[in-house]
Amino acid sequence: MYVIGERINGMFKDVRGAIQERNAEVIRKLAKAQLEAGANALDVNVGPASAEPKETMVWLVKTIRQVTKAPLAIDTTKAEVMEAGLAEAGPGSIINSTTGQAEKLAVFMPLAQKHQASVIGLTIDEKGIPRDAAGRTEIALRIVAAAFENGIEDMQRLFLDPIILPVNVTQVTPRHVMDTLREVHLLSDPAPRTVLGLSNVSQGTALRSLINRTYLVMAIAAGLEAAIMDPLDEELMNAGITAELLLNKQVYCDDYLKAYRSSVKSG
Amino acid sequence: MYVIGERINGMFKDVRGAIQERNAEVIRKLAKAQLEAGANALDVNVGPASAEPKETMVWLVKTIRQVTKAPLAIDTTKAEVMEAGLAEAGPGSIINSTTGQAEKLAVFMPLAQKHQASVIGLTIDEKGIPRDAAGRTEIALRIVAAAFENGIEDMQRLFLDPIILPVNVTQVTPRHVMDTLREVHLLSDPAPRTVLGLSNVSQGTALRSLINRTYLVMAIAAGLEAAIMDPLDEELMNAGITAELLLNKQVYCDDYLKAYRSSVKSG
Repeated sequence: MYVIGERINGMFKDVRGAIQERNAEVIRKLAKAQLEAGANALDVNVGPASAEPKETMVWLVKTIRQVTKAPLAIDTTKAEVMEAGLAEAGPGSIINSTTGQAEKLAVFMPLAQKHQASVIGLTIDEKGIPRDAAGRTEIALRIVAAAFENGIEDMQRLFLDPIILPVNVTQVTPRHVMDTLREVHLLSDPAPRTVLGLSNVSQGTALRSLINRTYLVMAIAAGLEAAIMDPLDEELMNAGITAELLLNKQVYCDDYLKAYRSSVKSG
Repeated sequence: MYVIGERINGMFKDVRGAIQERNAEVIRKLAKAQLEAGANALDVNVGPASAEPKETMVWLVKTIRQVTKAPLAIDTTKAEVMEAGLAEAGPGSIINSTTGQAEKLAVFMPLAQKHQASVIGLTIDEKGIPRDAAGRTEIALRIVAAAFENGIEDMQRLFLDPIILPVNVTQVTPRHVMDTLREVHLLSDPAPRTVLGLSNVSQGTALRSLINRTYLVMAIAAGLEAAIMDPLDEELMNAGITAELLLNKQVYCDDYLKAYRSSVKSG
């Protein structure tokens, strides 16, 4: 499980406050805590209300770089904010994200190549989010083609995100997304990786953590390899690690939770 | 999710003690507590050490029948204990279990028909537990055929159990069992039901509840419809209910956990 820690995002109150006050210690602590808890990479999002998104992104990345060299997922829809973030974070970063629209792919795929970054591609295009798995897979194929056309031939650098929606808004999507996860693995050999913005499944519900960890387990069983999620939710991490144990992706020992976290920290 | 409560089993210390002292109150309380927690049926097993298994089974069933008419799964390998339990429990009981061996099927399928009981069929035969999903499915087909030959044509009365083994003994079985769950649904139309003796997956491990609930979610996503499990493990029940919510088998409401339990209790 490749965990991209979601907590450094201006939509969270503590981060929004830290951004406004340029309080670097809050950001550094969140970076360290997420890595300590088992995150492999960290998402960085200035939040919806940021007045100076580019300057804020650069400040966030600089601040995080004071404590870690871990890969950063630069999370923005704006190309200029993305480029500033990638330049500051260095090679091995993750573009979060492009959609399957031709004009987005034409911007973000070259950026990925220029900065030696990985890319998260959302299965959405100008017509919106497809209603079923087949529509999602069709857009996924378009994103894979665009990656190849831009010289991104290592499929480990491409993460496809079938987009999970809140279960209180639509209850058919969780199954469509699992079907898509299975299909994406058959798209090419080697196949691109798969990722989800997990917390979206529980948006607006009363039992967020329970719904998040239950869906994480189901999605991992369907082939999910990476998730943007909260590594500080210990039960969520335990559920994901245990799912991988049951799929024979980690050797059993009584201390398998601890063993997993140690192996992530030692890289 | 059809939950068969596993707690009235002589392998548990409290039940073993209650059997030895013929303490009916302990058994009645366990029956009521499991149904209150959301069990649909109750397993009844005299335990491995019982000196008078037939008398003990009859006493257990009589005691449980003082407080509930819920279906009972008579859990024994001995035909005479099975028959005594079925006779006492009444129609609508569950035979737990037959294997796929011809001589077992020849005994238990007629018993099921005579007592209007459902049957749990384990995918094991004289050669043992198959190494892969294909071997399990082959035995499953034999069990389905035996059910039809004995007049059990309503596939809702047949539960196939692909046999999960402890994850600390074999780490390939969890995946084989999920593959079998998917295949069993294609065996006939309508398909037989599927069931697992869930707790076996965590036998001998240090984190039993976490492993049980993680595997329950994965198995439900693969099509599992019933489980012999501990309904008093609240987190386990919550995980199973949430998995079914995410598969669109229950309508979302903020109180969906409570709504599920209420609907089970009202039948």
